[in-house]
Amino acid sequence: MKIGMSHGAGGEIMQDLISDIILGNLKNKTVNGGVGLEDLDDGATIPLGEHEIVISTDSHTIDPLFFPGGDIGRISMAGTVNDVAVMGARPLAIANAMVISEGFNVDELELIIKSMDEVCQETGVAIVTGDTKVMENDKLDKMIISTTGIGIAPKGAITRDSGLKVGDKVILTGSVGDHGISLMSYREGFGFETDLKSDVAPVWGMVGAALDIGGVHAMKDPTRGGIANALNEMASKSGVGMFLDEEKIPIKREVHAASEMLGIDPYEVANEGKVIMGVAPEKADEILEAIRKNKYGVEAQIIGEVTTDKHVILETMMGGKRILEAPIADPVPRVC
Amino acid sequence: MKIGMSHGAGGEIMQDLISDIILGNLKNKTVNGGVGLEDLDDGATIPLGEHEIVISTDSHTIDPLFFPGGDIGRISMAGTVNDVAVMGARPLAIANAMVISEGFNVDELELIIKSMDEVCQETGVAIVTGDTKVMENDKLDKMIISTTGIGIAPKGAITRDSGLKVGDKVILTGSVGDHGISLMSYREGFGFETDLKSDVAPVWGMVGAALDIGGVHAMKDPTRGGIANALNEMASKSGVGMFLDEEKIPIKREVHAASEMLGIDPYEVANEGKVIMGVAPEKADEILEAIRKNKYGVEAQIIGEVTTDKHVILETMMGGKRILEAPIADPVPRVC
Repeated sequence: MKIGMSHGAGGEIMQDLISDIILGNLKNKTVNGGVGLEDLDDGATIPLGEHEIVISTDSHTIDPLFFPGGDIGRISMAGTVNDVAVMGARPLAIANAMVISEGFNVDELELIIKSMDEVCQETGVAIVTGDTKVMENDKLDKMIISTTGIGIAPKGAITRDSGLKVGDKVILTGSVGDHGISLMSYREGFGFETDLKSDVAPVWGMVGAALDIGGVHAMKDPTRGGIANALNEMASKSGVGMFLDEEKIPIKREVHAASEMLGIDPYEVANEGKVIMGVAPEKADEILEAIRKNKYGVEAQIIGEVTTDKHVILETMMGGKRILEAPIADPVPRVC
Repeated sequence: MKIGMSHGAGGEIMQDLISDIILGNLKNKTVNGGVGLEDLDDGATIPLGEHEIVISTDSHTIDPLFFPGGDIGRISMAGTVNDVAVMGARPLAIANAMVISEGFNVDELELIIKSMDEVCQETGVAIVTGDTKVMENDKLDKMIISTTGIGIAPKGAITRDSGLKVGDKVILTGSVGDHGISLMSYREGFGFETDLKSDVAPVWGMVGAALDIGGVHAMKDPTRGGIANALNEMASKSGVGMFLDEEKIPIKREVHAASEMLGIDPYEVANEGKVIMGVAPEKADEILEAIRKNKYGVEAQIIGEVTTDKHVILETMMGGKRILEAPIADPVPRVC
């Protein structure tokens, strides 16, 4: 059997590969009873005294390297900082391993490093260690950046995907589909003018503000597979369902238009600066207000609530109901 | 300016690139006063209460993926475990990010994962989180595995490259050049039969035994650039020199023979299961004995001592003296 593109796409086909080949052949998958590989959460934890160390890793291969709203440097840093943040931990440090193709332009490398620095400064994160390798240009196209984030949370404060409770309000911190749709529009050059930009941004500001208020039970950043994947994963791991009001899900006019043209569901494409939170109902308004004060959270909405149902149900704008399913494989060319 | 192969080779040309483009454009490079990016050590540290968290990262691109003595799975795990260990920390967890080329054979992937598991079990390390991406096969040849290791040391117990003290004994845990020379012989197919194998192995057993005795001032695993690079880096960072007895440096007969044929200095090629230690003279014999009890340390030797000189001096087998210099760039095709 051969690896196909769908194996790296974040849907069910990939889950099966990971379960069979990776999880099935590894014995040690957790440390000190922390969140481990089997949990397939946004990261792992190592309990240590009064703290939990949170670790998350990602390899970034985006094409093109520079796109409206960001570049591979920004997405590498923000993506990893975000995975640590949605575990409920303050991101502190990044380990940055780069493999660069021979002949790569040093000026472009410098721009990429500067973008990384920007995210570091905005979030108070440091790049503490790294590795740089060069690969022959017939073996690697452009570059791959693998970032691993380290964060710290107080003991017992980790927010798991599985932490949703029935009655929780579901908060979405902003409009959906911006990254995926803008990247596809830009890359494929569909010939329509648009101001659409990737939303790639570090979410720690919003997350930290919510954690300070308390009552955050579960968080996830809806990247590969979009909110359709993230909402279903949270619900399924928590053994609950959701009832969501489609009218409350923020979506930009340009994203809507481009999605229609491309025939792509904007709920199924990646976002790179958004968070889905399940929060205690009595804290929901206060948390929403705090998130909206952050520049990346101005359009945040309470989009629905957690139910005993086992499905994620969308009440459509016409008043009908439909089940929002997780995508089977990535429905679109990879955008992150 | 374009990136060349020598930029990823671990010598001085690479140091310059890293200094100018990477270090020069990043502001946050350390957390809580720990070892950070500027230190260019084997990893970084984050002080946390009574502990130090140690982090190290590496991207692995070895060709071929399977070679005598190991494969990319074993080298990815051992390499990262070793970088954490030589900082003086017990390795606990690995984050494993893989980018796999479309069409890659799933059976080979399984063998690679099993090799990773073997190192995990031997060292008590867990793979706690990961990422799997698939890249088009015209953009990536085979695979890249980026592993990040997390370890814990007691506060103040970190062994820095710069920790050598004048009078320290220098211990080398086994024969040099096995990985680099065996890989080149195998890959280039020079047509001579050899039993030579890579030494790729986790060194935590030897390191842990030495740390239990105490008096370990500095450690480094001599990978890219070989012992020539590692010894010079330790001496230079510590502001000292070394006087070494070449006769004490273990080297296999086959490595010696193959090096001559290939015209390559075995001191300049990578080892993947060895450690250089600078230890207090009164502890040296006890540490040497403990290391020799480990299966990877049977041939360990005290090869010399730390001096006030600023050079690494080799007393040759003929009784002459020569300065052992760090390689300018990788003198050989990449082998790790």
